[in-house]
Amino acid sequence: MYLASDNTGPVHPQVMQALTEANEGYVHGYGNDVHTEAAKSALRDLFEAPDAEVFLMPGGTASNALALGTLVQPYQAVYCSGLAHIHVDECGAPEFYTGGAKLVGVCEGDKVTPEALTKALAFWNTGDVHQFDRGALSLTNTTERGNIYTLDELTALATLAHENGLFVHFDGARFANACAMLGCTPAEMSWKAGADVAVFGGTKNGCMGVEAVIFFDPEKARGLPFRRMRSGHLLSKHRYLAAQMNGYLKDGLWLELAQKANGTCARLVDGLRALDVKVLTDTPANLLYFEMPLRAHDAVQAAGAMYYDMRTADAQPEDMTRGRLVVDWALEHAHVDEFLQKLKAAL
Amino acid sequence: MYLASDNTGPVHPQVMQALTEANEGYVHGYGNDVHTEAAKSALRDLFEAPDAEVFLMPGGTASNALALGTLVQPYQAVYCSGLAHIHVDECGAPEFYTGGAKLVGVCEGDKVTPEALTKALAFWNTGDVHQFDRGALSLTNTTERGNIYTLDELTALATLAHENGLFVHFDGARFANACAMLGCTPAEMSWKAGADVAVFGGTKNGCMGVEAVIFFDPEKARGLPFRRMRSGHLLSKHRYLAAQMNGYLKDGLWLELAQKANGTCARLVDGLRALDVKVLTDTPANLLYFEMPLRAHDAVQAAGAMYYDMRTADAQPEDMTRGRLVVDWALEHAHVDEFLQKLKAAL
Amino acid sequence: MYLASDNTGPVHPQVMQALTEANEGYVHGYGNDVHTEAAKSALRDLFEAPDAEVFLMPGGTASNALALGTLVQPYQAVYCSGLAHIHVDECGAPEFYTGGAKLVGVCEGDKVTPEALTKALAFWNTGDVHQFDRGALSLTNTTERGNIYTLDELTALATLAHENGLFVHFDGARFANACAMLGCTPAEMSWKAGADVAVFGGTKNGCMGVEAVIFFDPEKARGLPFRRMRSGHLLSKHRYLAAQMNGYLKDGLWLELAQKANGTCARLVDGLRALDVKVLTDTPANLLYFEMPLRAHDAVQAAGAMYYDMRTADAQPEDMTRGRLVVDWALEHAHVDEFLQKLKAAL
Amino acid sequence: MYLASDNTGPVHPQVMQALTEANEGYVHGYGNDVHTEAAKSALRDLFEAPDAEVFLMPGGTASNALALGTLVQPYQAVYCSGLAHIHVDECGAPEFYTGGAKLVGVCEGDKVTPEALTKALAFWNTGDVHQFDRGALSLTNTTERGNIYTLDELTALATLAHENGLFVHFDGARFANACAMLGCTPAEMSWKAGADVAVFGGTKNGCMGVEAVIFFDPEKARGLPFRRMRSGHLLSKHRYLAAQMNGYLKDGLWLELAQKANGTCARLVDGLRALDVKVLTDTPANLLYFEMPLRAHDAVQAAGAMYYDMRTADAQPEDMTRGRLVVDWALEHAHVDEFLQKLKAAL
Repeated sequence: MYLASDNTGPVHPQVMQALTEANEGYVHGYGNDVHTEAAKSALRDLFEAPDAEVFLMPGGTASNALALGTLVQPYQAVYCSGLAHIHVDECGAPEFYTGGAKLVGVCEGDKVTPEALTKALAFWNTGDVHQFDRGALSLTNTTERGNIYTLDELTALATLAHENGLFVHFDGARFANACAMLGCTPAEMSWKAGADVAVFGGTKNGCMGVEAVIFFDPEKARGLPFRRMRSGHLLSKHRYLAAQMNGYLKDGLWLELAQKANGTCARLVDGLRALDVKVLTDTPANLLYFEMPLRAHDAVQAAGAMYYDMRTADAQPEDMTRGRLVVDWALEHAHVDEFLQKLKAAL
Repeated sequence: MYLASDNTGPVHPQVMQALTEANEGYVHGYGNDVHTEAAKSALRDLFEAPDAEVFLMPGGTASNALALGTLVQPYQAVYCSGLAHIHVDECGAPEFYTGGAKLVGVCEGDKVTPEALTKALAFWNTGDVHQFDRGALSLTNTTERGNIYTLDELTALATLAHENGLFVHFDGARFANACAMLGCTPAEMSWKAGADVAVFGGTKNGCMGVEAVIFFDPEKARGLPFRRMRSGHLLSKHRYLAAQMNGYLKDGLWLELAQKANGTCARLVDGLRALDVKVLTDTPANLLYFEMPLRAHDAVQAAGAMYYDMRTADAQPEDMTRGRLVVDWALEHAHVDEFLQKLKAAL
Repeated sequence: MYLASDNTGPVHPQVMQALTEANEGYVHGYGNDVHTEAAKSALRDLFEAPDAEVFLMPGGTASNALALGTLVQPYQAVYCSGLAHIHVDECGAPEFYTGGAKLVGVCEGDKVTPEALTKALAFWNTGDVHQFDRGALSLTNTTERGNIYTLDELTALATLAHENGLFVHFDGARFANACAMLGCTPAEMSWKAGADVAVFGGTKNGCMGVEAVIFFDPEKARGLPFRRMRSGHLLSKHRYLAAQMNGYLKDGLWLELAQKANGTCARLVDGLRALDVKVLTDTPANLLYFEMPLRAHDAVQAAGAMYYDMRTADAQPEDMTRGRLVVDWALEHAHVDEFLQKLKAAL
Repeated sequence: MYLASDNTGPVHPQVMQALTEANEGYVHGYGNDVHTEAAKSALRDLFEAPDAEVFLMPGGTASNALALGTLVQPYQAVYCSGLAHIHVDECGAPEFYTGGAKLVGVCEGDKVTPEALTKALAFWNTGDVHQFDRGALSLTNTTERGNIYTLDELTALATLAHENGLFVHFDGARFANACAMLGCTPAEMSWKAGADVAVFGGTKNGCMGVEAVIFFDPEKARGLPFRRMRSGHLLSKHRYLAAQMNGYLKDGLWLELAQKANGTCARLVDGLRALDVKVLTDTPANLLYFEMPLRAHDAVQAAGAMYYDMRTADAQPEDMTRGRLVVDWALEHAHVDEFLQKLKAAL
């Protein structure tokens, strides 16, 4: 019953198959090969962005941090949710890649609001050199709590950011799951909503390790090729990144897997509600927070359920706890049902 | 006829097989899985270093740079050959990972000598704060020109380095090929020769993308886990790094492939000498430099041979050029023979 | 009526005199001179710390940031007040000098409390590599709002910090003013209260530009001399830093000036209270926040009073504002009285 | 007999006088004061550059490194002489301020030549991401060996640099002495010869600690104000930087002092030649290298002469040594004569 993360499941067979097929003969290294050209072309098509600059990398941390490091100067600030994984869960990757920019968590919750952003700008950027210059706004859709920004919300935030001299970065972690929830296209959930750069993650949704960084304005990508090389994220046997992406995009697999994960998560939500367990996430994609008695938590974990305990001082009653459940494409309904059964017994 | 690099060939079937076998069910992410434990254990055995700290990463640039960044302060100097790939071919990866340390190329050739190191220390480190503090010596065996340091040479250099307050780093690019040439064990070619840290590369020798960073004194590895995370080189689906390494180590595949590549390279050397082409590398492992008429170069490239033209102003007569040939485990004798045949026709 | 900052007034004549006296003949550069030896020795005496490593620099921003950069790794976190000037007013100096460490504002107010620190540690440092490692606690006494930590408060925080693996840094901005308020010795307000490093500022209290960074354990200062050189804060004509410090320390001038500034500030506080103006700072040293009608603010500024308007959205009623008043050693009682008079007319 | 450096002598009385005069009453901090406005205006006049952006800082290391850090990206290379102080004598200040750019010493001697620059560009910048991108050329006039670039030489190098996509930085260490030697204007020796940014040093030529960084194209200075703040080089009591510069510029003092130092150096050169001591510097401004018997060196140092021994392995016969003599504005002819006398006795 692995409900801890969407990086614990297997790679989808279609992606493995693409790796095997690409493993024939000799091709140039560092991305100068047909597999990479095909992947870039497919991504430009998917994002309806024929001029976009596209880069593949093996992980999400570096993809997001390199995108920010390319757009943001060391003396600028990056605005994000106070819970954003780039802020609290990546040991300072954006600080490292920007050369010491400031991450400003504008709110305590997972969703940035225009009000919170406006207030943070007023506090952090008076325009004086004593404070950080304005850099970027970074949004994660699906959020760290599993919620979804609507297209209108994204557009309003991106517009506000641009009006205030910020670049706009959309994070890639669970981009596909949000797309599936919104029933929109990747273009609608990226540049049409105001993103200057978006990361399209594959790793959490059926790939082995590949993410695409997509700059919609090629001019803004200046510097990224050198920064990617110097940070060691330009893989020499690059065809194997490309092959994964090609397998992932083929026949809309990326969307199918996201829908499947979201569907399994919906089943989980229904089950929790049927048990009167409080689901804290309003619009869960493939991830949710829930609250339940500590006693039940201990029992269900003892019974083999794996998920993170997210209790935080003063956020819930003392005898209660909070947990995070994440569902990936491979998780079977039987697992969900087993978990719910154990939980029922534990409550 | 791909003779340009050892990153252009396919992944060995045994490594692909290991990836497929590891692709079953759920395991924890970030290296907390049985595959990773097995790989670490196998590497400790191979290096006869039961206490070593072992880290897997997807590429060589980051592996070497992170090792240096962990050992060396921003205000220190890293001594290496003036041709070392960390110095001239990685767009400043060590500078990035150390926070701006100085790479000092101590010699114009590919092999560091005690004399060159002594002279460089005298010029660059007078002990005053105006100059960089002493950091590390980095050696690459097989060198960038394909040559081999003997165990005695390595030991003499490491001893000199330690006497002068430098840490000692052995690069991983073609570690296996050097091992095969010297007929020694990995332990003999690393800590027994004085290395504080060694990188054991897999990518160029049959893997898809995996390198092991091995700190023989665990104390010296302090900080690396955080630096790896923050640079995005701690892959979430870590089992696929481990699986590659496990496939690569099984039944001594790593050594077999290195021996095969070296053997194919020896055939190439014999062929070049038979054609009176000057081989510039004294002790070629799986890589060599050679000199020949420009005219022949143009003809053989036109005939489909792929390799890098390395001519440098004033290094050879004007109507001559220099080329670099690299042989990987997969290159067939037929390819070598075809290349030699075309070359013969072109001369 | 300059009440905006303690960096707007003149240099004290005794400090100017020391500069003039030091301006004789030739001495070695970079701190190898008698003036510097005398200053270091006087500081060691003042701090009752015969083994301390002492460094002089021309400004506070670099002094504090270099101290932190020497103690804290790029992958660690520095805990401080959410209003700390190192966090919000120095354009990322600590981020620059540490190579990208995270500044964590543990509270919204100006004073760090044990509860706030404990809570922040629980949120930010679970011990996993996804989060920053533990670095340092930085405390500013006098705080950014003019308040004073008692020795007991400092000791409790430093003890908690050490128990949690943090170094302890005491900021130098208005160190002397706090010392004067507490009626304690510099030793009591630094290492005896748990500081690993303290900065003793001179610039705001009568000097032209000099601060002393004092490491009580010389071992912990390792690296600072190189970092100071490489950041350009080792001044070549170092005697003029030392001369200032010598003039500043002579006959207890540093304390006398701090007492004078604090006394002038007390007169200001009395005057404000007499006018029923709300003083927001509980224990003002030479700096205070106050609240008054916007209307009065506009009038008194129009009448020539200079101070910063610190109104922040939702911190005060809409028709009110907040101002910051800072008093330096040179400000005359007549200036204070004039300000109070104008304010009275404006209310 | 202080002949070791031009940072060992006193501050000129006119500069001290200016400091005293500026020490009156209250002015805004951080450069928003009349003294600073006056200094900027005077510098724009002196450099015939009404649109230039001008910044004052307390030291040369930071001034040059911040100028480079503003122009050059972390993944770019800075070309300079192999002896340039930014390369070998500042503990990596440019690396720190650029975030890890590569300093490439293009020649073994002190003067960069077009041939050496062309060769270095061919080796270091093939245009591939494996190598550093092109950043800047940095020239120091007076050179580290005391030599002078002519205006034609400067122009040829700057033109070549611009043709190759490099910015051009002229270092400030002994800018005035070179100007005096060439009998040209600061404009001729900076932007008219192709500089994008020049540093105009005051510290070595009669000031206490002040340098001006002058960007001739204000657009290129973008970012410097923030970088200066974050590195701690925006002094709060900024009027004292400005006052020094104002005193230094008044009535052409800067040029008078440089001429005086150069004249004293010429007397020294004549004296050395009269003693048959080999002067290694061809066109000495206020600094020279010379060669003489080790025995004489030991004797003259024992007699109280202070200068640096610059012997380097294999640069001179074994029983000979090399020394560096530097003359500042304050050095009296009597000191020179005394040194020559002692030397005569020692030879």
